[in-house]
Amino acid sequence: MDYSSSPYSQTLSDSRVLVLGAGGFIGTNLCRALQGRVKRLRAFGRRQAYPEALNGIEWLQGDFSDPSRLAIAVSDVDVVYHLVTASTPASSNVDKLADLHQNVFSTLHLLEACKAASVRKVVFISSGGTVYGLPRVLPTPEWAPTDPIAAYGITKLVVEKYLHLYQYLHGIDYAVLRVSNPFGPFQSAEKNQGVIAAFLRNAILGIPLEIWGDGRVERDYIYIDDVVDALIRVGGLGTGEERIFNIGSGSSRSLIGIVESVEQLLGKPVDSRLGPSRPVDVPRTLLDISLAKEKLGWTPQVQFEVGLTRTCDWITENLIQVGG
Amino acid sequence: MDYSSSPYSQTLSDSRVLVLGAGGFIGTNLCRALQGRVKRLRAFGRRQAYPEALNGIEWLQGDFSDPSRLAIAVSDVDVVYHLVTASTPASSNVDKLADLHQNVFSTLHLLEACKAASVRKVVFISSGGTVYGLPRVLPTPEWAPTDPIAAYGITKLVVEKYLHLYQYLHGIDYAVLRVSNPFGPFQSAEKNQGVIAAFLRNAILGIPLEIWGDGRVERDYIYIDDVVDALIRVGGLGTGEERIFNIGSGSSRSLIGIVESVEQLLGKPVDSRLGPSRPVDVPRTLLDISLAKEKLGWTPQVQFEVGLTRTCDWITENLIQVGG
Repeated sequence: MDYSSSPYSQTLSDSRVLVLGAGGFIGTNLCRALQGRVKRLRAFGRRQAYPEALNGIEWLQGDFSDPSRLAIAVSDVDVVYHLVTASTPASSNVDKLADLHQNVFSTLHLLEACKAASVRKVVFISSGGTVYGLPRVLPTPEWAPTDPIAAYGITKLVVEKYLHLYQYLHGIDYAVLRVSNPFGPFQSAEKNQGVIAAFLRNAILGIPLEIWGDGRVERDYIYIDDVVDALIRVGGLGTGEERIFNIGSGSSRSLIGIVESVEQLLGKPVDSRLGPSRPVDVPRTLLDISLAKEKLGWTPQVQFEVGLTRTCDWITENLIQVGG
Repeated sequence: MDYSSSPYSQTLSDSRVLVLGAGGFIGTNLCRALQGRVKRLRAFGRRQAYPEALNGIEWLQGDFSDPSRLAIAVSDVDVVYHLVTASTPASSNVDKLADLHQNVFSTLHLLEACKAASVRKVVFISSGGTVYGLPRVLPTPEWAPTDPIAAYGITKLVVEKYLHLYQYLHGIDYAVLRVSNPFGPFQSAEKNQGVIAAFLRNAILGIPLEIWGDGRVERDYIYIDDVVDALIRVGGLGTGEERIFNIGSGSSRSLIGIVESVEQLLGKPVDSRLGPSRPVDVPRTLLDISLAKEKLGWTPQVQFEVGLTRTCDWITENLIQVGG
């Protein structure tokens, strides 16, 4: 990573840190960035998608829905990064009860465990793409109305509200990052995690890309290193008025635009097919990131094309592992 | 009730209506107002606190947490009034998981049942006193930030979000009333439902009133007939942009002020004791009700002292039943 100023505060360096969901896309990247930079690092997750990526990091195997494992995970910990998501925006609407149960109930168990273990701070990754629903203002600031059109966005929002409640009632500090659409190394191309990983993988393998709708849907894609940078900054942030920050790239791109970028990167035309549009897809999302810039001293560093190239390199190297 | 204009629209008069939580304070009052005014009325609840008050109304006994009973309740129904609350602001913080389960899970089961039964509209009573948390603007409008400091307020807010989702995904219309502190006949003086019922009952019986904190906490008290008026208006409201309305009296009063009003009404001094303040108590709540005035043609009709007198008369008549 190439930082203009180091995001590691003394507070975070002196902390014992737990990452929940450490085996996943964001978790793996965060753990690699924290390794050797904090007092102690513990990684918790169901499984490691890329075990060698977490070499040398304390690993605690467990399911987020198991309160007894959570209690063990948070013991002797100062800062908890909560990166667990049990669903996707599209899947969440199919069984809204399961979505609520898996995401919110488990988080309440976590917060109870944090209270019992005197955890100082919880950092949570929320969803910049779904908590606002159909955006009434673009770029969308943090104070905009939050009326999700996917159950996924509701459960993220509810967790934000409970974090606020536990801070108020029980003094557990927190920070929330409403992240737009992250992409980069260690993102699965197969689990509906992100369109860029899926597009790159298919394009490399010569499989036609599947585009939902007419391809004009615009999203705010952000390279993973910039997300990790923000996570590290909020982890060491002093207590202030603002605890919820949008994290996006500052610009939006259409699916068609991404296909063109992929073609340019690979130097060959890419086959794509238009499919039906989905009700969870809002026409355009773009986050207003001025609050994070001002309060975290953070700004996205990695240009889209640079991030795309790095992601492409990583996918090419790891194609066997990602299922190609 | 004394209305400036009738709140009963043709749409509501032609509807088959279900009231959930019909045996409680607001439900009993609403059912009595709807009786004979709608195409069909069905009352659903666990128990009737005042059975004679619901004479002649179709009664379906059931627990809100039982999905099979809910499915029966919503069959052949156009409009559902959802008035069920399984907790109080203070109790909700003690077991946040139970609060979430009882209030939100059951409501999701209800919404699934409404979808299956093609219910046209759901009207929900939310909490004007808790969804905003510590109010950053007074009087508080609907667009103000919603950061509850009681789990009770979170679950009310979550239900609002799911109503929006079901409207968007499945076309079930909805309306939400964020009601301040209602009081009036059929409110229990014993279940922490409302301070006015408790004060009046104790004052009549000569039991000292218990005041949380220093008595300067201010709340926005609204007489039940005005709440019922608003419920009837939103039940027959056409589809518009606004679906969430604050319902309050337009002014706030301190606990000490209420004690003085009670003394004046009874014509005798009343003994009171100050107790510890509670973390869920914000210093002052007062709702901005201009949206309801504009869009519903609604305005509070009953002066506080008039409502207090009517409530006092009712409690005196029913003292044996309320446990005196």
